[in-house]
Amino acid sequence: MGEDAILPIAGIRLAATAAGIRYQGRDDLVLMELAPSSRCAAVLTRNAFCAAPVVLVRQHLGQSMPRYLLINAGNANAGTGAPGLAAARACCQAVAEAAGCSFEEVLPFSTGVIGEPLPVERIVAAIPALLSSLQPNGWMEAARAIMTTDTRPKLVSRTFAIGGRRAAITGIAKGAGMICPNMATMLAFIATDAQVAPECLRACLHSAVDRSFNAITIDGDTSTNDACVLIATGTLGNPPLADLNDPGARAFQEALDAVCRELAAEIVRDGEGATKLVRVRVEAARNRDEARQVAYTIAHSPLVKTALSASDPNWGRILAAVGRAGILDLAIEGVELWLGGIQVVAGGARAPTYTEADGAAAMAKPELLIRVALGRGDACAEILTCDLSEDYVRINANYRS
Amino acid sequence: MGEDAILPIAGIRLAATAAGIRYQGRDDLVLMELAPSSRCAAVLTRNAFCAAPVVLVRQHLGQSMPRYLLINAGNANAGTGAPGLAAARACCQAVAEAAGCSFEEVLPFSTGVIGEPLPVERIVAAIPALLSSLQPNGWMEAARAIMTTDTRPKLVSRTFAIGGRRAAITGIAKGAGMICPNMATMLAFIATDAQVAPECLRACLHSAVDRSFNAITIDGDTSTNDACVLIATGTLGNPPLADLNDPGARAFQEALDAVCRELAAEIVRDGEGATKLVRVRVEAARNRDEARQVAYTIAHSPLVKTALSASDPNWGRILAAVGRAGILDLAIEGVELWLGGIQVVAGGARAPTYTEADGAAAMAKPELLIRVALGRGDACAEILTCDLSEDYVRINANYRS
Repeated sequence: MGEDAILPIAGIRLAATAAGIRYQGRDDLVLMELAPSSRCAAVLTRNAFCAAPVVLVRQHLGQSMPRYLLINAGNANAGTGAPGLAAARACCQAVAEAAGCSFEEVLPFSTGVIGEPLPVERIVAAIPALLSSLQPNGWMEAARAIMTTDTRPKLVSRTFAIGGRRAAITGIAKGAGMICPNMATMLAFIATDAQVAPECLRACLHSAVDRSFNAITIDGDTSTNDACVLIATGTLGNPPLADLNDPGARAFQEALDAVCRELAAEIVRDGEGATKLVRVRVEAARNRDEARQVAYTIAHSPLVKTALSASDPNWGRILAAVGRAGILDLAIEGVELWLGGIQVVAGGARAPTYTEADGAAAMAKPELLIRVALGRGDACAEILTCDLSEDYVRINANYRS
Repeated sequence: MGEDAILPIAGIRLAATAAGIRYQGRDDLVLMELAPSSRCAAVLTRNAFCAAPVVLVRQHLGQSMPRYLLINAGNANAGTGAPGLAAARACCQAVAEAAGCSFEEVLPFSTGVIGEPLPVERIVAAIPALLSSLQPNGWMEAARAIMTTDTRPKLVSRTFAIGGRRAAITGIAKGAGMICPNMATMLAFIATDAQVAPECLRACLHSAVDRSFNAITIDGDTSTNDACVLIATGTLGNPPLADLNDPGARAFQEALDAVCRELAAEIVRDGEGATKLVRVRVEAARNRDEARQVAYTIAHSPLVKTALSASDPNWGRILAAVGRAGILDLAIEGVELWLGGIQVVAGGARAPTYTEADGAAAMAKPELLIRVALGRGDACAEILTCDLSEDYVRINANYRS
């Protein structure tokens, strides 16, 4: 997505710099400044081994509204115990002193290698330069600076209407591996200039995340650092959105959904080694949990993912995944399967109309819909995933070394 | 394992032939004959999309004791609906007519590609030749003929004592992919000449499978065709083993455990693209389910498996897997981790004594123990798995094409 399409958000300024945390010759540290009027909601990883910065974000959000977000790439500051927590605190303290705000008004975020000490000195040394270079058009630089194994920055903007006025919403995200968010993607930061009441902001974020970042998987590995932050700077001056049924709040939710879904799809498209974007849709399930369970089982199956990588319509592997998804009373005679628009399985076995040529043509496309109907009810769920290629293994075998 | 170490089992004769089911220039069809005195127990896949032969095995075992096992490689006869069931029946019928036994006394087993029609004519045509070439020393030929992506046959023999007499037990197995047995491995056939009462045979098999085939995973994909069959021909003439506390029954259980564990380890060693045999042991868990859950989460993590492939002691990925394994009240301060004999994590963070050089040395070995202590209780579980290499992707991207 070109930088020209990215809308700045009044009340947000950003800066990025190269602090030399792990990478050489590229930015790896971002500071984001929020206007004092801002309200903020966040969804964080459910991994029990959550990183030190995630612990601090939880504490700080409970104490005050943030003024600064400090984000580094290259080091996750996870699995680092008490020293890791002290390191994250030291970074917040340095921002607070330089910017003249309180310690709790700074939120730290980290992404990168797990288990290595955070180079606090290098981060602290870079803070004055960050503070002096904050600017409203820094979104693209920020999106680039938070990348790890990502091959491209991920940015999305939308506008929406509140009482006849145009509001804007812009988000950035990163993530290409260890992606099976059980709360949010690796890191996503989304801001709007609309004024939104805190409760409404939280509700809108949870609803949007549930249908976007919490419905993607690259490798089934939920990260220790997942975080999605939504900021409403309120600079638009509209009466605060508070009732989800108001037209303004509905427009905001729609725009937020679109931004989250597009960022989530961008993350999957940029999945490590990925060559295909695959939508797994499970229909006619007894309930949504069951539909999600089957969809995730398909989306996590290494055999399905390697067949996708080879564009091989090896639909038996999809059936096998459906069969082992843990639905004990599944009647296989009721199961149907489509690849793209092609019906492959009817009544639990190969559809009479199916030909390998049709299946191969469907699989050859860069975007594919795998649709399974269980014949048990009317619930459905959809998961976005990608294929598993030799490149995934190469990237992850070489990530640290 | 050399053929010379394999003990024939009195009462069992085997034959293999090249029926041209899928492969060219190699055997792919096995017939196993059981003496009339034989007793038989089986453990079958829990995949809801179980294959047609599995359906028949369940039916036939409920009706009579088997005289013949017919096993083909190259075609799984799964996802084939009613025609698949008819095909499996036709094969049983052909054996029954040629051998002069009843239809229900024949058990069919299939392994290979899912969703393609079984070439019944080619199988039926090969049966007379199989019947005329049955012999007691056919175990190695049989083990070779049931291979699919396996790179080597898997055979194990043991002896044990019953009341001063020497009994023997021999087993063969196959499987290298779609391995996360939720009952048994892909295919395993084990026979003893001891006389064992049916209830005791079943109990011994379930106990052995639970600690061997049901504790391995290569890729988390439970097959549609998993089956493990245990035959006691009774030709030894010992008083039937019936009480699990008798010394003879205990010796039998120990020998059976050893055979199953060794065959299971052989399957993991021969995992598709595998370069390492990895034992994941989770200790100090509150209960066994929880220990298994954590062990499987580590063993299935693509990020852990790719790090293993690269011999990279990227222990942060192991912690991240522990953290997302679904134990909601896990206190990470209580978690410890060892790679081989090296303590890597103490108190939830890097152990003070740990060095990367030590970790790298532990990871470089072809067999590795990953040991995690959760600090919550005294239950434990152990899972055998292997690494995820580029070869796994290559093999599975090319399996059908």
